[in-house]
Amino acid sequence: MCEEWPTRGPQVIRKKGAYDMQAFMDKDFLLTTQTARKLYQEVAAGCPIIDYHCHIDTREIYENRHFENITQAWLGGDHYKWRLMRSAGVSETYITGDASDREKFQKWADVLGMAAGNPLYHWSHLELRRFFDYHGLLNGDTAQIVWEHVNAKLAEPRFGVRGLIAQSNVEIICTTDDPLDTLEWHQKLAADPTFTTAVLPAWRPDNAMNLEKPDYLDYLAKLSAIAGIKTDTFSTLKDALRVRMAYFHQNRCRLSDHALNYAMYVPADEAEIERIFADRLTGKAVSQEDELKFKTAFLLFIAGEYKRLGWAMQLHFGCRRNLNRTMYNRLGPDTGYDCIDTFTPSAQLAGLLGAMEDAGTLPRTVLYSLNPNDNAAIDSICGCFQNDEAVCRVQHGSAWWFNDHLEGMTAQLTSFANLGYLAGFVGMLTDSRSFLSYPRHEYFRRVLCRLLGQWVEEGLYPDDDKALAAIVRGVSYENAKRYFAFPV
Amino acid sequence: MCEEWPTRGPQVIRKKGAYDMQAFMDKDFLLTTQTARKLYQEVAAGCPIIDYHCHIDTREIYENRHFENITQAWLGGDHYKWRLMRSAGVSETYITGDASDREKFQKWADVLGMAAGNPLYHWSHLELRRFFDYHGLLNGDTAQIVWEHVNAKLAEPRFGVRGLIAQSNVEIICTTDDPLDTLEWHQKLAADPTFTTAVLPAWRPDNAMNLEKPDYLDYLAKLSAIAGIKTDTFSTLKDALRVRMAYFHQNRCRLSDHALNYAMYVPADEAEIERIFADRLTGKAVSQEDELKFKTAFLLFIAGEYKRLGWAMQLHFGCRRNLNRTMYNRLGPDTGYDCIDTFTPSAQLAGLLGAMEDAGTLPRTVLYSLNPNDNAAIDSICGCFQNDEAVCRVQHGSAWWFNDHLEGMTAQLTSFANLGYLAGFVGMLTDSRSFLSYPRHEYFRRVLCRLLGQWVEEGLYPDDDKALAAIVRGVSYENAKRYFAFPV
Amino acid sequence: MCEEWPTRGPQVIRKKGAYDMQAFMDKDFLLTTQTARKLYQEVAAGCPIIDYHCHIDTREIYENRHFENITQAWLGGDHYKWRLMRSAGVSETYITGDASDREKFQKWADVLGMAAGNPLYHWSHLELRRFFDYHGLLNGDTAQIVWEHVNAKLAEPRFGVRGLIAQSNVEIICTTDDPLDTLEWHQKLAADPTFTTAVLPAWRPDNAMNLEKPDYLDYLAKLSAIAGIKTDTFSTLKDALRVRMAYFHQNRCRLSDHALNYAMYVPADEAEIERIFADRLTGKAVSQEDELKFKTAFLLFIAGEYKRLGWAMQLHFGCRRNLNRTMYNRLGPDTGYDCIDTFTPSAQLAGLLGAMEDAGTLPRTVLYSLNPNDNAAIDSICGCFQNDEAVCRVQHGSAWWFNDHLEGMTAQLTSFANLGYLAGFVGMLTDSRSFLSYPRHEYFRRVLCRLLGQWVEEGLYPDDDKALAAIVRGVSYENAKRYFAFPV
Repeated sequence: MCEEWPTRGPQVIRKKGAYDMQAFMDKDFLLTTQTARKLYQEVAAGCPIIDYHCHIDTREIYENRHFENITQAWLGGDHYKWRLMRSAGVSETYITGDASDREKFQKWADVLGMAAGNPLYHWSHLELRRFFDYHGLLNGDTAQIVWEHVNAKLAEPRFGVRGLIAQSNVEIICTTDDPLDTLEWHQKLAADPTFTTAVLPAWRPDNAMNLEKPDYLDYLAKLSAIAGIKTDTFSTLKDALRVRMAYFHQNRCRLSDHALNYAMYVPADEAEIERIFADRLTGKAVSQEDELKFKTAFLLFIAGEYKRLGWAMQLHFGCRRNLNRTMYNRLGPDTGYDCIDTFTPSAQLAGLLGAMEDAGTLPRTVLYSLNPNDNAAIDSICGCFQNDEAVCRVQHGSAWWFNDHLEGMTAQLTSFANLGYLAGFVGMLTDSRSFLSYPRHEYFRRVLCRLLGQWVEEGLYPDDDKALAAIVRGVSYENAKRYFAFPV
Repeated sequence: MCEEWPTRGPQVIRKKGAYDMQAFMDKDFLLTTQTARKLYQEVAAGCPIIDYHCHIDTREIYENRHFENITQAWLGGDHYKWRLMRSAGVSETYITGDASDREKFQKWADVLGMAAGNPLYHWSHLELRRFFDYHGLLNGDTAQIVWEHVNAKLAEPRFGVRGLIAQSNVEIICTTDDPLDTLEWHQKLAADPTFTTAVLPAWRPDNAMNLEKPDYLDYLAKLSAIAGIKTDTFSTLKDALRVRMAYFHQNRCRLSDHALNYAMYVPADEAEIERIFADRLTGKAVSQEDELKFKTAFLLFIAGEYKRLGWAMQLHFGCRRNLNRTMYNRLGPDTGYDCIDTFTPSAQLAGLLGAMEDAGTLPRTVLYSLNPNDNAAIDSICGCFQNDEAVCRVQHGSAWWFNDHLEGMTAQLTSFANLGYLAGFVGMLTDSRSFLSYPRHEYFRRVLCRLLGQWVEEGLYPDDDKALAAIVRGVSYENAKRYFAFPV
Repeated sequence: MCEEWPTRGPQVIRKKGAYDMQAFMDKDFLLTTQTARKLYQEVAAGCPIIDYHCHIDTREIYENRHFENITQAWLGGDHYKWRLMRSAGVSETYITGDASDREKFQKWADVLGMAAGNPLYHWSHLELRRFFDYHGLLNGDTAQIVWEHVNAKLAEPRFGVRGLIAQSNVEIICTTDDPLDTLEWHQKLAADPTFTTAVLPAWRPDNAMNLEKPDYLDYLAKLSAIAGIKTDTFSTLKDALRVRMAYFHQNRCRLSDHALNYAMYVPADEAEIERIFADRLTGKAVSQEDELKFKTAFLLFIAGEYKRLGWAMQLHFGCRRNLNRTMYNRLGPDTGYDCIDTFTPSAQLAGLLGAMEDAGTLPRTVLYSLNPNDNAAIDSICGCFQNDEAVCRVQHGSAWWFNDHLEGMTAQLTSFANLGYLAGFVGMLTDSRSFLSYPRHEYFRRVLCRLLGQWVEEGLYPDDDKALAAIVRGVSYENAKRYFAFPV
């Protein structure tokens, strides 16, 4: 069939489409207009990366980990890829099981080659192009070629973790750290003059807030120990957290993050919160309403501390975790068994931020929902809390996780622009556990330039080079630098 | 950089794109196909405007208010613009504060010039083109030129409020009026033969329904006085409202409007409603459930009156107001601190309309949600209440407020067409407080023609001039005229 | 006006657009790229149809019903068309009333001709082209020509129900059958060697689950009788259902279907379920919570049976039925008075599937929501329950009912691809009561090829003929064949 179509293989696949594009997913990938191509090549491509939210391991940077092969780098911990393989009916043996790395890679290549429309198709091919200079396709037929090509590269000294970061022009990385974290590896890295990317901690106090968790009292004990304050009341818990925040601040932390089921707002007075906390300490059951009251109080408190310290706050919500208990028991959390929760009441989010604003304690805030239906509501809420403390002081974060693809990014950018001031957006982050995921910033910037280019092409915005370049430079790099004001 | 790009400035910016367009946002703005251009120029452009829902002040029309400068006309009360300025980090001084009008205009121009993707970019430039014959860009660099150009025009006699309306070819305007309103200015205008646009009242009885408000009893007292009926029961409240509706009807009112948090349906019998009303009169706390029961009963009653009088009913819902209490205390309501509320239960909306239909009291009804996720649900509910009383007897209103942009309008039109009969849609309204916003009708008509043109271009609908022209003329003008049956 | 536009009429309407298309809605309908055209013509068009979910009457196939005229075939029972006519203000006389078939057809043609953007425009014209070789437009002007043309065809022997199915290249049909059904007509058809399409029953036990229905006890009595087991406890109800499932299995049933308001999850122990069932038997009121507990238990039980038998499970949810009681009382159910219910809690769906998975009883499952906002949540939930039992073991079903149009299908396919493995999708079904609706498979396949073609055109997926053809063949035909594993 179709003899004039190119045969499949590792060679460059030429496009037959309307705009000139030299090769599949190469220079002009996603850049559908002349304006987009100019903006990307002349403005966006050269901007450094500020990856202000991710989940990489600072120790691995310090120790400059090398990967033995592409399976370890790609499939070692990436639950996005695992989910896609499971969806395609691949046995767990080839995902997290005992199969050899080469066998696992073959299964991955078989699946990826057929994964039309999935963002992993793009992420993976971008990584092959940018890091490994491989410009063909990855699929079942080319797996062996790619395996050999990439593994040979990985064996080179410059393909350690530090090299991957340096190649990606990353200026600042923020990790995600528990209040208990000693920040030892951050300190060692900061003291190492041979590595110039700043790796800063970010504060994620979920374990101190989630009193419904079975191991909450153990956590409090550890927090008491490291803070030197016995956390036997909500008041002393706050003191202990202040101690840790001061420590994080000394270690250049300027950003926090919260993972919430939803942004709740159930106000209660201080006495009631102390009662709830006391109940938890004495082992009494905590009702769902008490849990929400406690968490509301926790967030109101901690936002005030962020405000005082000049930190920004990130709220991530709309996620339901560990649905599949069978697999959770076998593999643990963050293994691909989480989903979107569509219960994300905009009224409570509005109430929570409103209470902070009333109290004068609302910090610069970035809001992310895993529920893509929330875009417009979030942008409309942000618009209620703007002032001259910052451009887009409360803003809608980049399309997150299940929405982190061309359509999801485009929807987030469009909503942000329709209801707010896109020129002030702090832009992309990887949210990744992988050292190979910096091309997602490239992907995002291409999507941004594509959208602006379409607006110009359709006459929705003028072909005003100064303004367009300022928007692209801002969203790609400068806004994050100014908004977060990291001490580097 | 980019020397072949045009320099920014007040001159016409030429498009480099695929379709021929003589200047930025001019003749062919939004009209991406030949079909769209024909439909707009030959059909839509010449239709008069029926602006059946807005918030302008009738007295200002009667007195033919003139604006001193463009800041007063644009920034005097437009919270859309205020929000955008705040989002861009502008100090309140330059928004609602003490800065001079020229300073405020500069800040507005600085922000607007960078507001790619925001509908205000389009609204503002359309207004500059249509009213003031200014065809360049507005941004920080051109602010002075625009300031001088527009203010000179505003000083001309034809730029009073009456002239702005007349220039816009507005046939009918419906304002938004409380049952207490004397309609004095409507009467004066009606008696003035020199002004030919019909300015009709529209009935908005929210204050008579919202018994949870602190000043509800004061309101009842005023209503009793103006109606001449003591409203000390729900039954006598209904009598008083009937008196006022008769008065509004005499004054050519044919349309009502309700602003609801959500369309509620919690049925209760008459005795219970009287009990709730009596509780309120005697100062007892009214529970949320009682509030919903009362409002349900109120809506069921009043819909029956609309039906009897031949009025149409508008329900606006999905809005949460005055989130930011600090700013509310400073500036009051309608100053840019409202948001989308995503709690808009389709089951209750369906229940409410179903109860009206069962009782034979469902009037012609237009439904608007601020929650853009409601499009399909609303259209599917409308489809359950259609009959030969009117074409699209119950219908989905135009994209509202935060959704009033290219994407939002396109989504509303597409959903309406997919689930209903687009040819029967009553079309656009400004919902505006400004006398400069009539070009939004032009914007809407361009979006409509653009969408139809795309359908023809893609072979989804035939290039059938008679049918297409009938649809465009209907949605732009004739449907509203027929559906609302105003006595003019 | 517009003299260079073609006049409206039955003749072919030529497109003026950018891509070459010989006639309106003909060979290249929806196929906007060269890739799309190749994929559709060379791969999709030739695939047989597996219509695994519909509502046609098996007896009418066996008896090879002939329609007297196009009104009977089209308007006899199609509530989609009725709704559109009502929306356009047509009197019920011409819909379900006493008007003549010719009069009804005229009204239908008047409305359809103006129904730009409505999927019925496409369905109807595709049916005219594929079955009746009519390639012009249907509208008020052409109604008489179409009436004569189509009715003449319908009088031919090959236009009986069997001929319509055979012309459509349908390999397998699954009907929708109550546990009480004797499957007599399925047996007769299976025994008839002159008809080669396999017509299999599908199990829909809603009546056995919906204990809140007034006639539930009558239903139980009938079930007891046909199963030979007295259903006086939940345990014996389960026994009776097992008997009927065994019977359905013998009669080649391999697929089930449930119509739920929403996918609920309110777990309770066996004793409580027996108590609820006993309450219902003795006429006590069943609370809403008890209803949800009972239905949860019912679904958990029956899913286990499906798993044991190797059946697949379909869950349809997000629908609110019979809103308009006046018309319900007059016309009964399924007459066009249902709507989308936006209460579709993803957490409960996740909980329900999770409980099945924990118990090892989760069968292959296809999820359909009438709420289009659920796309991403459903796809994210599916991803939590994948393994090597099947490719896309738990999957998101085709855009359903109110979403069954170009935009809805495109949204479902895009979400499926973004969050899962589109190559494993089981594809389209008609869900129809009509024997003329098989062209909806063609429509779906064109939408699929269109989307893939756009991805290739935009450089989002390579022009890889082998992979693209495999995806199209899989989604059009092979995946359903493999996934459902029907015994034919």
